Order: sequence, then C-alpha cells, then structure tokens
Amino acid sequence: MAFDRLIEKAAKLQNPMVAGLDPKLDIIPEKIRERAFEQYGKTLEGAAAAILECNKELIDALCDVVPAVKPQCAYYELYGWQGMKALRDTIAYADEKGMFVIADGIRSYFGNAMQAYAEAYLGETDVGGGRTPVFGADALTVNGYFGSDGVKPLLRACREFDKGIFVLVKTSNPSSNELQNQAFEGGELLYEAMGRFCEQWGEDLPGRYGYSGVGAVIQPTWPNQLRDLRRMMPHTLFLIPEYESGSADDITPAFNANGLGAMVSTSRPLFCAWKKMGAPQEDFAKCARESAIRTRDEIMAHIGAIRL
Amino acid sequence: MAFDRLIEKAAKLQNPMVAGLDPKLDIIPEKIRERAFEQYGKTLEGAAAAILECNKELIDALCDVVPAVKPQCAYYELYGWQGMKALRDTIAYADEKGMFVIADGIRSYFGNAMQAYAEAYLGETDVGGGRTPVFGADALTVNGYFGSDGVKPLLRACREFDKGIFVLVKTSNPSSNELQNQAFEGGELLYEAMGRFCEQWGEDLPGRYGYSGVGAVIQPTWPNQLRDLRRMMPHTLFLIPEYESGSADDITPAFNANGLGAMVSTSRPLFCAWKKMGAPQEDFAKCARESAIRTRDEIMAHIGAIRL
Repeated sequence: MAFDRLIEKAAKLQNPMVAGLDPKLDIIPEKIRERAFEQYGKTLEGAAAAILECNKELIDALCDVVPAVKPQCAYYELYGWQGMKALRDTIAYADEKGMFVIADGIRSYFGNAMQAYAEAYLGETDVGGGRTPVFGADALTVNGYFGSDGVKPLLRACREFDKGIFVLVKTSNPSSNELQNQAFEGGELLYEAMGRFCEQWGEDLPGRYGYSGVGAVIQPTWPNQLRDLRRMMPHTLFLIPEYESGSADDITPAFNANGLGAMVSTSRPLFCAWKKMGAPQEDFAKCARESAIRTRDEIMAHIGAIRL
Repeated sequence: MAFDRLIEKAAKLQNPMVAGLDPKLDIIPEKIRERAFEQYGKTLEGAAAAILECNKELIDALCDVVPAVKPQCAYYELYGWQGMKALRDTIAYADEKGMFVIADGIRSYFGNAMQAYAEAYLGETDVGGGRTPVFGADALTVNGYFGSDGVKPLLRACREFDKGIFVLVKTSNPSSNELQNQAFEGGELLYEAMGRFCEQWGEDLPGRYGYSGVGAVIQPTWPNQLRDLRRMMPHTLFLIPEYESGSADDITPAFNANGLGAMVSTSRPLFCAWKKMGAPQEDFAKCARESAIRTRDEIMAHIGAIRL
C-alpha cells in the first residue's frame, strides 16, 4: 500500500517531512528566472522552465533528507499547460530521486469525472487502446463534499496502482469555522464527520503499519483538536500543511509513541531560507537543505525516533 | 458583471442551455480520433488533438443556438498537459465564437493558492512583470469547504476581470446525503448553509438582472428542493448540470416568470445524439445541434420566453 512506502521512506530518513513545491515565480531565485526568460522570453513557457529548474535544484538538495514532496497544483496551473508540463516533469524527477509525491490538487467530483482525475493523477489513461500514466503522482489530495461517490473512483485507482489519497478534513484559515466547525444535530462537527468517513473509506485499503491508504489533511487550530482527531481517526495518516519552525509542540499529538501517524509539510520556509540566513541567493538550495535538516531535528526532538 | 453577459447571451438566443464539453476519448467520433492518431500516434498529444477537433466542430455547430459551454477540467487533465493545452484552445475558440465559458474545475483552496487558481482561470498571471491571461474562462466552478477565505480571492478576480463563479451547493449523486443533506444544530442543512453563503458572497458582485456574480451548482434530487433553494437564494444564478431530455418539469422551479434564474447544462446527450438518431457518426455535430434545438424547445416550452 502506498502509505506503507511513504512511512518506510520517512523511517529510513528518520524524517516525517514533506517539502511543499509551491514555486510561485516571485520566490524563485532571480538567476534561475533570468536564465529561463533569456531562453524562452517572459512567457508562460519561461515561467514553467524556471519552476522546473528551481524544483530540480531543490529536489537534488533535499532528496536524501526529506522523504516526500507536495507540489501544489494551483501554482502550476497558474502558468497554463506549460506549468502543467512542469508539474509532470517535477513529479517524474522527484520520483526518479526516490521521493514520494503528493499532488496537492484537492480535486472534487464524483462518478466519471472523478474517475478521470483518478486516472490522471494516480493511474493510467486509455489512449486508443494503450494505457499511459499521466501525471504519475503517488497520492492526491481530495475534497470530500460529494461523499463516498466522490472518493470511490480514487479508492479503485489506489488499489490498482498502489496509491493513496489525503482527504481535506480540517483547515486553519480563519473562515474554516463558517462550515467545518459547525455542529450537526447530535453534536458531531462537519470536519469530524469528514474524519469519520476517512476512517470508513480507509477500511478497504489497510496498511502494514496501522494507517490506511486514505489520509487526511489536518491543520489544527488548537492543540486539543489534533489530539481529539488523532483519537477519532486512529488508522488515518495525517498530512499537516504549512509547518512553521517553532511549532513542533503543536503537532506532536498527531504522532504515536513510535513516531508514526503524520507527515508534516513546509514550503515557503524552505524556498526562502537563504533570505533568513543572509546567504546569497545562489545558495537557495543549500540553504533549503540546511533549513530542512534543522526542521527535521526540531520535529524529531519532539516525536523521538520513527520505528516500524 | 459577467453573469449579466451570460444572461444577455441566453436572452439573445432564447436558450438557457450550457453545452458540457466533456470529450472523453471514447465518445469522440472515430474519424476524428483516427485522424489525430495518424498525425500524432496513440499518445496524449493525439488524444488532445482529437478532443480539440471534436470540440471545435461542436462549437461551430452550437454557437448560434447555445449561449455557453462548460468544459469539465477533469477530462482535459486526463490527457496531461497536452489535454490542458486543448482546454485552453477550446476556451479560446468558444470565446471567439461568442460563447460564454464556464471552466468546471471545482477548485478549492484558500489564500495564495486560491489566488493562483483565480489568476489561472479567470484573471491574468504575472510573468516577470508582464501580465498574461492563462486559461481565459468567464467563470469557474468552486468548492466552498474552506468558507469565505476560499472564495474571496476569486471575488477579487471577478471584480477586476468581469468574471463569475459557481459554488458547489447541492449535488444529486446517491452519497450526497452523507454530508450535504445533514442538518446542523438549528435545522439548517449543510447545502443550505452553503447556499446562504453564496447569497452573502454575491452581495459584492451585484448584477443588472437581479443575479450576482456568485452562482451555485445545483442538482436537485426532489422537486420541492429546487423550489426551496430558489426561494432561499433569490440573487443566485443556478447552474443545473446533467440535464436529461424529458425532465424540464423538474427544473422549471429554478426560473422566474421572466425565464431568468438558471442555466441548464447537458453534455453526453449532445455528444451521443447521432447514436440515438441512428445517423452516421460523421454527422455527430449536426445531430448535436438538432438535439440542442430540441432540448432548447423543450425547456423554453416550460419556462416561456427569456425577458430582460
């Protein structure tokens, strides 16, 4: 099962981190940008070339420290089909370097259209009788508003192609309380109901280490929330986005005594580490690596060793 | 405001239909497929070429009958970046032919990533100082699970670029009851709450004909549901997907006495009209046109004239 692979990679590197590859043009080092613009002009093609180059340097610098990457699809669609090509090439490069790839597209639909997303990101597409992989990610993030019909096509692809999904459960943006934190009759909150479904959907994709192939995107807004969700969702791997240095205390409740249970994603702090470190911009990848190592150490100091 | 334009187009053609452009390879006429495969091989490129050709023929056949098209992004992502290029070219072609384009991507996020989606589908992307449109749609479908933070970046783009959004409110898939139909404490159902937010978000984008720039995707499962939603959401334009011939009665509650209030989308019945009509496959676009005219007449017989 795909998340067994992810967990094993995390254990091997003793690091539950995910590097968010969200390369908006304005945070890409100037030299890389200029080089791409020289070759392709200030075009979507040029932007896409810069993104890919930047990602590759980051992947090279991180692949023996960080087990997984999470490209946010929005930042690739932002540069059109050229950006989507960079997404595909980024995924292929990370895969080649042994990293687990989570495509952060938060797709939602049901039936045939969700089947199409499943084939595009996790499976294979039928092209005139032959089948070909498309974006080739290991996992996809998903919005479960449609209920089970919106997830079943993905579960089929997960089984067939050894992949996983992360369902959006709880986010920490200020307005998340408008819907997610509202209580249904009987007292269950909307995000708790979504979490309950994750457990249920995951029953079909059991994993070797106690976590199913259906994970959950969880951004806790208060410490006990994470503890409660962990208790309610014992078989669900958490993906905690937007980790900021210094908040390791907040995320430890997601892990068990063996250091298993969650993957922790960080993006901008890696991309922009060179600024914070007062280093020249050319050293951005080296600085990202140093920052990743510090973040790893910080998290590992709180959760202890990752033991399988 | 964008939906004023859409409503005016519908009034001009006396037709509230939207043609869903969901060109999965297996429903594309064989001749188009073969031609594309001959040129590009059985590849994603070949698939994308077939899709674009099929869409263009449909757009040519429909553009003086149907005011809008709705490409379902999943069926383009299914064919990789090549498919996304076909999506961009399809949107440009429909726009050139005077059709309103709804990109059916049901995107969801918040903050910068949603801003990226807004720029990609509705606005312009900054490329090294110059700004360029990317996919160039007139409207985007959206999942509102994040609450207002997930919609505000889109509202800004709607204002700046004269665009609209349709928020997923109620779907008719069997499992939609698992979450959407659940009642919050106080009795409001989840989809009703989502509808209430649509009205609220739309206040910033008022339209000339009483409908704001924030529409709603509504697939009613029982007749009174649509009537209730119409009453609760008086300023929200409905997008009713997957219309099937013979169900005009079910959708009329979405319209007011002037024939305003909803757009009705249909896809597969158009693509596959030639089969049902026993016509040769080469006539698929002609048959789609005839089918669209019949569907238009059927709907218009129920809602009367569209009067501005």
